[in-house]
Amino acid sequence: MQRIYFDHNSTTPLDPRVLEAMRPFLTETFGNASSVHSYGQFAKAGLEQSRETIAGLLNCRPEEIYFTSGGTESDNAAIKGVAEALAHKGKHIITSSVEHHAVTETCEYLEKHGYQVTYLAVDNKGYVDPEELRASLKDDTILVAIMLGNNETGTLQDVKALAEIAHARRVYFHTDAVQALGKIKVDIKDLGIDLLAGSAHKFYGPKGVGMLYAKAGTRFSPCAHGGAHERNKRAGTENVASIVGMAKALELDCEELEQNTAHIGKLADKLYEGVFTIPDVTFNGDPDKRLKGTLNFTFVGCEGEATILSLDMKGIAVSSGSACTSGAVEPSHVLRAMGVPAELAQTAIRFSLGKDNTEQEVDLCLAELPPIINRLRQMSPIYAQAR
Amino acid sequence: MQRIYFDHNSTTPLDPRVLEAMRPFLTETFGNASSVHSYGQFAKAGLEQSRETIAGLLNCRPEEIYFTSGGTESDNAAIKGVAEALAHKGKHIITSSVEHHAVTETCEYLEKHGYQVTYLAVDNKGYVDPEELRASLKDDTILVAIMLGNNETGTLQDVKALAEIAHARRVYFHTDAVQALGKIKVDIKDLGIDLLAGSAHKFYGPKGVGMLYAKAGTRFSPCAHGGAHERNKRAGTENVASIVGMAKALELDCEELEQNTAHIGKLADKLYEGVFTIPDVTFNGDPDKRLKGTLNFTFVGCEGEATILSLDMKGIAVSSGSACTSGAVEPSHVLRAMGVPAELAQTAIRFSLGKDNTEQEVDLCLAELPPIINRLRQMSPIYAQAR
Repeated sequence: MQRIYFDHNSTTPLDPRVLEAMRPFLTETFGNASSVHSYGQFAKAGLEQSRETIAGLLNCRPEEIYFTSGGTESDNAAIKGVAEALAHKGKHIITSSVEHHAVTETCEYLEKHGYQVTYLAVDNKGYVDPEELRASLKDDTILVAIMLGNNETGTLQDVKALAEIAHARRVYFHTDAVQALGKIKVDIKDLGIDLLAGSAHKFYGPKGVGMLYAKAGTRFSPCAHGGAHERNKRAGTENVASIVGMAKALELDCEELEQNTAHIGKLADKLYEGVFTIPDVTFNGDPDKRLKGTLNFTFVGCEGEATILSLDMKGIAVSSGSACTSGAVEPSHVLRAMGVPAELAQTAIRFSLGKDNTEQEVDLCLAELPPIINRLRQMSPIYAQAR
Repeated sequence: MQRIYFDHNSTTPLDPRVLEAMRPFLTETFGNASSVHSYGQFAKAGLEQSRETIAGLLNCRPEEIYFTSGGTESDNAAIKGVAEALAHKGKHIITSSVEHHAVTETCEYLEKHGYQVTYLAVDNKGYVDPEELRASLKDDTILVAIMLGNNETGTLQDVKALAEIAHARRVYFHTDAVQALGKIKVDIKDLGIDLLAGSAHKFYGPKGVGMLYAKAGTRFSPCAHGGAHERNKRAGTENVASIVGMAKALELDCEELEQNTAHIGKLADKLYEGVFTIPDVTFNGDPDKRLKGTLNFTFVGCEGEATILSLDMKGIAVSSGSACTSGAVEPSHVLRAMGVPAELAQTAIRFSLGKDNTEQEVDLCLAELPPIINRLRQMSPIYAQAR
């Protein structure tokens, strides 16, 4: 059976060129980058070269990049780090109602520890209203955390405008760019943000490694204690091989961004049109302006989990919402925030395309999907009723 | 020039068999272990098989193993996790004065947040006095954190006896086993501890991955928020390839423990005797009972950093204290706690041997070392004075 992977927002395969770049650091260049001797210095050279590469690609300074174990740690470090460092100034944080759980649950944790969090509403395409952000800023607001590209819908917030609004009140702005990095051009200086989280395995790099950008001078407390690594902000032996892999992956993504975007866009358009030949389908997000490879549909009457498993039996991998909440019985908080009724949100399926997907794969998916939806609906009392 | 690596306590090379075990998960089995579809389930199978392997080797239950990004995160998670979960019960923590910075600095962080920490003294071999632990336990003590094998000296605490003392007062016991795992037999049930931290790259596994053992029922709050991974205790996409590598590495270490211990012991004895042909040398730690491959000497009159660099020029990699504090001007807190004067502690050199080291390498080191020490002493006003 041919296997088709349409779940690139959950994770991506490691690009073979990335693994090649990692290889020396998985074999002979194995030193601890904090060691004084040559083994350590060779490792450190790989580490710092990677920092420079990433900084160059994102338009920031190397010393503004901190390496972490992934996007979740980066979001945690940014939000808790600022919360702790600025607790004397205030305890109010603003975020959106469509963030990844790495942001949402960190905010909820802080709420249990005396912080106040405002969750901004979004419209039916998933956009935050800049005026609502402006109105929510208070004298004790210390941080605004709004994501760049949404993991479930691909909706792209106007982070540049939102950051300006925060900065007008001298409030830090953090963006979770985990889904955006590698998929669109991210220019940190242009965005004007203070903090940014990224994760390598979302852009054909290895799992277990991520980054936090923090603008020079940004005050945030370290999350992990025990050693002076990462300029005292993140203790732990540096995962050099994976960091080198992350830099290589981002480099390749940036080099090939135009062609990949065109290719994925074409496939996405085809999938979009094909899915809409099925009756009673809705699209969640912005059909025009989004991470093009992310397509989120609801199929009235078809429980998402059932659709996933049916497609999986045909070799096609998709997801409902984010992988991080798979198995959860709750409907997506992102779709709910966009005004999708709970019952309909339960039927959501996310297709997320990648650079190695082909037109033939989209054709095959479009051939398999309608009979699956049809069969599930025939078994659905809800669908019969709705008709 | 032949290169000799005598710094295995800083990090170890990845065993080629470990990289082979990781390979499928770095290539075709790339799924997100939290995904519902087959790609996810294949990844999850690797993840859970690794958990079972590790649990079997350490004599605990698979659901008592939590995967982390490394030893530092594991220590942080254990200590802060218990501190937060049991804050209502008390805010007193007991640790030793010879812990790794991942423990010490986490404790210092908690002291800034209203916790009280007792740092137990050690004797001149680095041992904690069980009676001092017993006397230090108070009604509001919530955690004792004492390491198994010391990273600088190899001193092995009698963790079993110490844990019993803590348990007699119904206090949790955490041990940092980062240096011990893979070097000695670690039987969690026999040790009787509640929490244990480990790190793969110390036992020929990959960097950026570690584990936390937490006995079933142990109350500790999660450190990272955002997703239900690791049974709600550690959010973030599972680093399956590295976890598989860690399991394989531990398996190999356990299988080959006897032969490696004998081999390293033989080399260590040779090195020990050879170094003592140099005048004015002292040994730090327990010459008889310790992690055999760890040898910590002081060379009166020779600044540690100068010795390291001189040996490095001959291709021999050693360290002064731990890599995590390299470049620090402070003398080792471990040696200071053992009663070594600051000026002498500054001259400490740690040799840490590994399974791939050879007798020929020890011979070469013993040929290079005396003239280096001699030369450094000739330049040392302190040494001339001391004579």
